[in-house]
Amino acid sequence: MKIVTSEIRVRSATGPDVVDITPNVEEIVGNSGIETGILQATVLGSTASLTTIEYEPGVIEDLKRAVSRLAPIGVSYEHDQAWGDGNGYSHVQAALLGPSLSLAVRQGCSALGTWQQIVVINHDCKPRERHILITIIGQ
Amino acid sequence: MKIVTSEIRVRSATGPDVVDITPNVEEIVGNSGIETGILQATVLGSTASLTTIEYEPGVIEDLKRAVSRLAPIGVSYEHDQAWGDGNGYSHVQAALLGPSLSLAVRQGCSALGTWQQIVVINHDCKPRERHILITIIGQ
Amino acid sequence: MKIVTSEIRVRSATGPDVVDITPNVEEIVGNSGIETGILQATVLGSTASLTTIEYEPGVIEDLKRAVSRLAPIGVSYEHDQAWGDGNGYSHVQAALLGPSLSLAVRQGCSALGTWQQIVVINHDCKPRERHILITIIGQ
Repeated sequence: MKIVTSEIRVRSATGPDVVDITPNVEEIVGNSGIETGILQATVLGSTASLTTIEYEPGVIEDLKRAVSRLAPIGVSYEHDQAWGDGNGYSHVQAALLGPSLSLAVRQGCSALGTWQQIVVINHDCKPRERHILITIIGQ
Repeated sequence: MKIVTSEIRVRSATGPDVVDITPNVEEIVGNSGIETGILQATVLGSTASLTTIEYEPGVIEDLKRAVSRLAPIGVSYEHDQAWGDGNGYSHVQAALLGPSLSLAVRQGCSALGTWQQIVVINHDCKPRERHILITIIGQ
Repeated sequence: MKIVTSEIRVRSATGPDVVDITPNVEEIVGNSGIETGILQATVLGSTASLTTIEYEPGVIEDLKRAVSRLAPIGVSYEHDQAWGDGNGYSHVQAALLGPSLSLAVRQGCSALGTWQQIVVINHDCKPRERHILITIIGQ
């Protein structure tokens, strides 16, 4: 059994913005030489999250709306009153979705359905470069 | 340290439908010979998710209602207008809950509370057979 | 590659209550001797969850409000009508957030942003001691 690590850096627009990182992840898995195991992805920071979705413009827009309902822009946040950051909603959205994602690795690829992509969501109130750490363990 | 893999296939009704897969998972863990480690479960496809809950009919109904509030049936989705699939809500619900679950393995069992079961949720607008990949790493 | 396990026990108030367990986790990672790998945390029981957030009183209050919107106290739950536990909302909140968290381990620490802490959320309708199992795999 072995362990392979890598890092992905992607630009993202003002949140909620959803960026497809599947090609980046698949390249890392392909280069790892690991056929069977698990892949763990961690996005650094408290205003971003990771999940999977069909990366199709319509449903991405639907996801943004649902995420915005969880913690809407334009209502009062204690965080903003204390710090004036203006990104109280960003922290809450990111905490609800979570900063990490694990997937099975099979036949040298991460296990995904046909219409399923790995995405990072920037929830912050400004554009951010997001850093995702990839760890693959297997054989 | 070693790695053991397996796959679970279960039938599910029109979403949101919640299926208990704890017996299936426990059988795999028991057969793996792994006493201490982690268990990773990945459900394939972008209209399903994994979590844990007390598998009791009342609270399962409560969970379905809460999931349906996150992305209700019967409102307009961009996904449906573009593709006519009618399952825009399914994609959004699944992305918010996430396609994977990890648990500690201790004393040859997955670590769960007394009233806690592992469930797959089918969010799709039709019955689906759902495939869950299980990976156990440990010793 | 090696595996190190430990357990954290923390007291928590009536839910939703959010407790910072970052110092506990970092001590375990530091003592593990593992520089590179993954950390898996599992909270036992069906009325608790794990995530990360900036542990700042304002945004913790914002998170509690958002969690309470997902499954409010004071509405009718099937679980409560069947069992009279009064914690239907606790089960639903915990199932939506999930009982586990994985993070990358790098340079002997769990990978977190500058303003990002690991938290356990007690969703139960009474104070609870929560047990979190930690598993670290790496080298």
